[in-house]
Order: sequence, then structure tokens, then C-alpha cells
Amino acid sequence: MAASDLILDPKLVAESVALGELELSNLRLFDDARFPWLILVPRRPGLVEIHDLAARERALLIEEIAAATTALQAATRCDKVNVAALGNQVRQLHVHVIARFKDDAAWPNPVWGRGARVPYEEVERRSLVKKLRAGFDFA
Amino acid sequence: MAASDLILDPKLVAESVALGELELSNLRLFDDARFPWLILVPRRPGLVEIHDLAARERALLIEEIAAATTALQAATRCDKVNVAALGNQVRQLHVHVIARFKDDAAWPNPVWGRGARVPYEEVERRSLVKKLRAGFDFA
Repeated sequence: MAASDLILDPKLVAESVALGELELSNLRLFDDARFPWLILVPRRPGLVEIHDLAARERALLIEEIAAATTALQAATRCDKVNVAALGNQVRQLHVHVIARFKDDAAWPNPVWGRGARVPYEEVERRSLVKKLRAGFDFA
Repeated sequence: MAASDLILDPKLVAESVALGELELSNLRLFDDARFPWLILVPRRPGLVEIHDLAARERALLIEEIAAATTALQAATRCDKVNVAALGNQVRQLHVHVIARFKDDAAWPNPVWGRGARVPYEEVERRSLVKKLRAGFDFA
């Protein structure tokens, strides 16, 4: 499925920026300067749960999760990475991969529901995007 | 690695019961009657992040996540399944697979940090364990 055919949930589009296309997923940066936060959106229509992917695609997804984890660690030197596919608010299958620090605004709790998103300053976002993109082989 | 060689974090042990051994992971039921909640703990020492597993084991892990999702759906007829590897409080790699309902105590928010755990009544837990175990091929 071509990148241009992916129909993204409008909330995902509004709150994140595209970083590039991996073999399976559209890779996005969630626009919240409090937490370096990637989102993977597999480019298949109608996905809700992980088992809606074919087995081969599931194997690709976990490789892309591992790559996103490594890229976040390299770009941020974080203390931990949180990985989650929730989908209670946006039903389209998407995976959060979030860099966590022992002094961040939510530690040791999860990041969801911790007050309002703080969009990046343009220069700050550009610098992080450059560092993160260096960690991926884009298709 | 044999099941008997897995050293589990004491907090994981205290808050969950073993359901059986999958090919990679020790499968556990988190003891909170508010949310039907499985935990997968890969039987490898020293794991923190998903990329600490070998590629073959990562593929197994996502298959076990998919199987846990299917088993929870069959046993509970839930509205959504939440999958997460966080590790902020228990560093040993473990994956939460949680059945969610539109009328549960946390919906549409994640389940973590929503008040105190409510342990199952023995008869209630036994009934759920039986239904859940039917969804797995144990090693």
C-alpha cells in the first residue's frame, strides 16, 4: 500500500507531524515538547487491534518498534522507553513509542492524561526531527 | 530457558498469578477485578527494552501479544484491548494486554494510576482463568 493511500485519523494528523515512511508504518512525531514521542501508523486500512495485521506484518511492526526505540535512545539518551497501542480515543491502530526521563513531567507514571500537550517551538522540533530521522532507513 | 529459571520481579509476582508458559513468555493474570488484564514476561534474563530480545524472539513476542488479545476478546467480549510495555516502575521487560470496556472504571483513559487495585474474589478469578486458559496452547 502506497504512503499516499493511507487515510489517517484526523486527531492523529492534528497532533503530530510526519517524519517518513518505514516499510510498514507511517512514522510520526507527536507534537508535545514535554516528551520525545514517536507514533507508528501501519499503512493498512481498517486496522484496530495488532492481530488485524497479517503475521508477516506483525513481525515488521515489532521491528519498527525496536528501531523507533533505538532511535529515541540515540537522539535523547532517555532513561526508559514506553511502548503502547491503546486506541481508546483514536481507534485506528497506532503505536506510541515514548522517551521517558526520571525527571520528566509524568515519571514514573504513564504520560497520557497528564495535562495539556505543549507544542514544540519550531527550532526545537526541527533539531529533534533531524536527530531522530538519522536513526531510520526510510523506504 | 526453562520456566523454572525465570527470575520474576517481586512486584510482578505479588500482584499477579501465573496462567502458564507460552513459547517465549510466562503468562500471568494481573489481580485486579476492575480490568481483565494479562501480563507477558519473556523468559530471558536482563531484558529491559523490546530490542533487548533477539529478532526471532521479538517475532514470538508479538505473536504472543496477538494470542493474548484474541484470548481476552473471546473470554470477555471487550470493546478494545490495550497493549503496553512501560517499565517505569518494574524495569524487567513485561507486556500488559488489557481488556477495556466503554463502561469500565477508567475509559477512555489508560488504566494505570486509576486508584487501588481490587483483587478478585477466588471464585470469580477461577472462572476467568478457566476461560482465558482455553484461548492458549501452553508449551
